[in-house]
Amino acid sequence: MNKGILYGVGVGPGDPELMTVKAVRILKACDVVAVPAAGESEKTAMKIAAGYIGDKPVIHCDMPMIRDKAKLDASHDRAADQLCALLDEGKTVAFLTLGDPSVYSTYWYVHKRVCARGYTAQLVPGVPSFCAAAAALNTALCAGSEMLHIVPASHGAAENGLDLPGNKILMKAGKSILDVRDQLAARGQLDNAALVERCSMEGERIVTDLRELDDPTGYFSIILVKEDGE
Amino acid sequence: MNKGILYGVGVGPGDPELMTVKAVRILKACDVVAVPAAGESEKTAMKIAAGYIGDKPVIHCDMPMIRDKAKLDASHDRAADQLCALLDEGKTVAFLTLGDPSVYSTYWYVHKRVCARGYTAQLVPGVPSFCAAAAALNTALCAGSEMLHIVPASHGAAENGLDLPGNKILMKAGKSILDVRDQLAARGQLDNAALVERCSMEGERIVTDLRELDDPTGYFSIILVKEDGE
Repeated sequence: MNKGILYGVGVGPGDPELMTVKAVRILKACDVVAVPAAGESEKTAMKIAAGYIGDKPVIHCDMPMIRDKAKLDASHDRAADQLCALLDEGKTVAFLTLGDPSVYSTYWYVHKRVCARGYTAQLVPGVPSFCAAAAALNTALCAGSEMLHIVPASHGAAENGLDLPGNKILMKAGKSILDVRDQLAARGQLDNAALVERCSMEGERIVTDLRELDDPTGYFSIILVKEDGE
Repeated sequence: MNKGILYGVGVGPGDPELMTVKAVRILKACDVVAVPAAGESEKTAMKIAAGYIGDKPVIHCDMPMIRDKAKLDASHDRAADQLCALLDEGKTVAFLTLGDPSVYSTYWYVHKRVCARGYTAQLVPGVPSFCAAAAALNTALCAGSEMLHIVPASHGAAENGLDLPGNKILMKAGKSILDVRDQLAARGQLDNAALVERCSMEGERIVTDLRELDDPTGYFSIILVKEDGE
């Protein structure tokens, strides 16, 4: 029997209309849909794709958001086991991932493993959240000779990116979001910064003055810092 | 009469299937399609969207790719004039732009002007070419705590970005593409770099050894440099 194919499908930032025609086609055609078992992102990915999943089987891969490398590796191995078992049965599997699968996706760790085992797995690009955030703010991410830096801002990691010349997207701040705000304030960059919460989702909110930021969870928050402040 | 609305529609990197459902809806519903008058990108944008344009009127805005600031400004002003005249007639206009409209788009300069004149103009996000390039290379752009730097590489501008820690996307190199290759070589970064030409378009080509690069035009070329070389 021919092996199945695994697709890592970027479902875009939140609005189901921001899925690509290709993502829709693959979701309609696949045999099984896969998502990580827990977390806000996964519930959101399911909600985005709901209109195309119908009554297909959905498998939930246990991929906890933890920092222990050995436990993480083990969970990604188990997820790869689950998916490869389906591929061995000849099933086509669509693994849902928010935004684009090449940008900080949990799926990537599973994708690598499935490819290394000799199976066919493909990335299906999606609209990254930061492009939708720029649209919501009605601004450009980069123009002319400006650089754009995508900076993961969790656990103090923003520090390295904040002083770079050019524009910055601060992502994945999560519970560090108020710290990140304070770091921007310390650099005098608050007036050049804007935040979008739950971009293109229900409850989207734009915060143009980060001094007013009151949600410390940082869920689905993207900060854009523009060099020229425009 | 109500004014029309201008949409800056990202049509994605090249494959018509990588258009979003929203882009397709707006193209089908709009009264007029607008594109810049000349250049490879524009022909490509028209080709991507062709299936949805039908026999709608298409206007061509004269927006030459020149470096003279005064002439550029004048051409963007004239394009804004053309579009605003249509909006005054109550027309809905979809301006096509390759990839995502917030990432180095020529459209942005017109969008700013139309908004400043008090009209409604909206950005419709699309899949940026670099996300499709990552999918073509079957690799991640960024994972974990890695930064990703989007670096415009035309006219020697890559220089500032090449030494940054993290992964890099070098875009817009155009006729500087062989210089950029030489800059990477001088830094010992060639083995960590890969190039995608005409990503997701007809004639897509992946160059994993940039020493073999022979097309000096740099048309639709994206270079990904990964810190860990993976």
